[in-house]
Amino acid sequence: MSDYSVIGDWGTSRLRLFRVQDGRIVARRDGQGIGIVGKEAEAAFAQAIAPWLQDGTPTAITLCGMVGARDGWVEAPYADCPADVADWRAAAIRFDWNGAPLAIMAGLACVADDGVPDVMRGEEAQIFGAIALDPALGQGRQLIVLPGTHSKWALVEDGRVIAFRTVPTGEMFALLRDGSTLGPKDAVGDVAQETAGFAEGLARAQDGRVLAGLFAARAMRLRAGRSADWALGYLSGLLIGGEILETRALLGAGEGVTLIGDAGLGDRYARALAAQGVASQRLDGDACALAGLGFTGDIKI
Amino acid sequence: MSDYSVIGDWGTSRLRLFRVQDGRIVARRDGQGIGIVGKEAEAAFAQAIAPWLQDGTPTAITLCGMVGARDGWVEAPYADCPADVADWRAAAIRFDWNGAPLAIMAGLACVADDGVPDVMRGEEAQIFGAIALDPALGQGRQLIVLPGTHSKWALVEDGRVIAFRTVPTGEMFALLRDGSTLGPKDAVGDVAQETAGFAEGLARAQDGRVLAGLFAARAMRLRAGRSADWALGYLSGLLIGGEILETRALLGAGEGVTLIGDAGLGDRYARALAAQGVASQRLDGDACALAGLGFTGDIKI
Repeated sequence: MSDYSVIGDWGTSRLRLFRVQDGRIVARRDGQGIGIVGKEAEAAFAQAIAPWLQDGTPTAITLCGMVGARDGWVEAPYADCPADVADWRAAAIRFDWNGAPLAIMAGLACVADDGVPDVMRGEEAQIFGAIALDPALGQGRQLIVLPGTHSKWALVEDGRVIAFRTVPTGEMFALLRDGSTLGPKDAVGDVAQETAGFAEGLARAQDGRVLAGLFAARAMRLRAGRSADWALGYLSGLLIGGEILETRALLGAGEGVTLIGDAGLGDRYARALAAQGVASQRLDGDACALAGLGFTGDIKI
Repeated sequence: MSDYSVIGDWGTSRLRLFRVQDGRIVARRDGQGIGIVGKEAEAAFAQAIAPWLQDGTPTAITLCGMVGARDGWVEAPYADCPADVADWRAAAIRFDWNGAPLAIMAGLACVADDGVPDVMRGEEAQIFGAIALDPALGQGRQLIVLPGTHSKWALVEDGRVIAFRTVPTGEMFALLRDGSTLGPKDAVGDVAQETAGFAEGLARAQDGRVLAGLFAARAMRLRAGRSADWALGYLSGLLIGGEILETRALLGAGEGVTLIGDAGLGDRYARALAAQGVASQRLDGDACALAGLGFTGDIKI
């Protein structure tokens, strides 16, 4: 039996464990998020890893994400920005777990130029992973963006995370879509309409007035013949366009913008950035997460 | 038995009818909103007014609000801006109802300078009522603001409504407070904390970056020792401050800003305007609504 190690990200909504052996990922196991198992974190982890333990104790276990939050398994600190990958690794909390050295990686904390503090747990693994996968990202000023429920925008300078900002764009969109008087209940999935609305939302966002642009999702249906699918696209474009405008003003322009995450959302952000004259590159979120945890080989599982 | 007339506003969530006799309001009746009674509007109205009909047929009935919407009782048109009070009155839909001349007042529609259409139904009665109560509002450029779930900002020039914009600030706040990961669930009603948070939210809004300021409601609790009540106040200040900044940029400054509505929300908006260096005056919402419907005397009921 070869030696093996385990790396994983354990976020609020899911656990993903990867078994690394002979420089390859040979197996994967999925489990419940730390936000679901709560105080039963250790038992849930033991259950998730149990089949592998039958092959012996792993040489190392490394976990990142909300597993290290106050309500997680064991609280890990935040590394303060500016922080490079060595600072981040040094801030991990390490302990022996049934004979295996286990590390729960730190989060990152910063105070932006405008005096607002911010935190992340999990995304920093993807950011440092992106730099590991693409060494050019470790040079000069770079904006690295992880779009999502809570989008993270990080300003990286010569490989150090200088500052970042969380923007809850995805959460706002879901609230507006599902719970507001602006979110149309009668959308039918007309992609052409949705795409047209997205473009109009992006254009509207350019003036920086997102709040004053929201009601148009309804007024344009009442007065300008737009459809429900148009309105959904419009709200998405308005919020994403506004997010980009505001964060670029806050963090300053980088030499490049890199998007990390799933393909669909990455497409939207790439289009929104292009509408503001900004080119972007894309990296796969899973590959970045694993690279941040030390594995930079091919992911085939 | 003296002649009497009936004026009322029938909005989405409530019906209020006032009986005007000898130049005074002598009685009031409340009923369900048009959004509740829906297609049973006429029956609901007949039931609400029935006790008065025993004293004879009113000389006139005038209703404003969502009663004139497509899903209301009888659809009334929108008067297109620029519109003064005469334009608005001329656009009412009038018919005979059981021997009484009944008017359902028009809404207002506009297309703002940025090309975005907008509509209102009901608030225009308060705006024209404000001008009737305070003739100075009919001179020069004035911003008239009705804060609420869907705040309405109207630019009035020499008594004509030039353009307006709806900003769903109250709805956004409720969504964030009740349904988001940013809205603290453990607020205890600490007014001092809430007031301090409101002031910080207003200050944060000054940079025009509302989306990028939202997450601080959570991060400041995690990293700067702020309380749940502080966070609620912060979100309110951020949104109201952002609303004011954006709408003033959109509509331009007026010679004065007049707030119409309830006292608590009016206080918040007056403080938020003052934080941006803008003085404001206040008018009572009920008095404005009745003045818009033609009654400018004292309201004692």
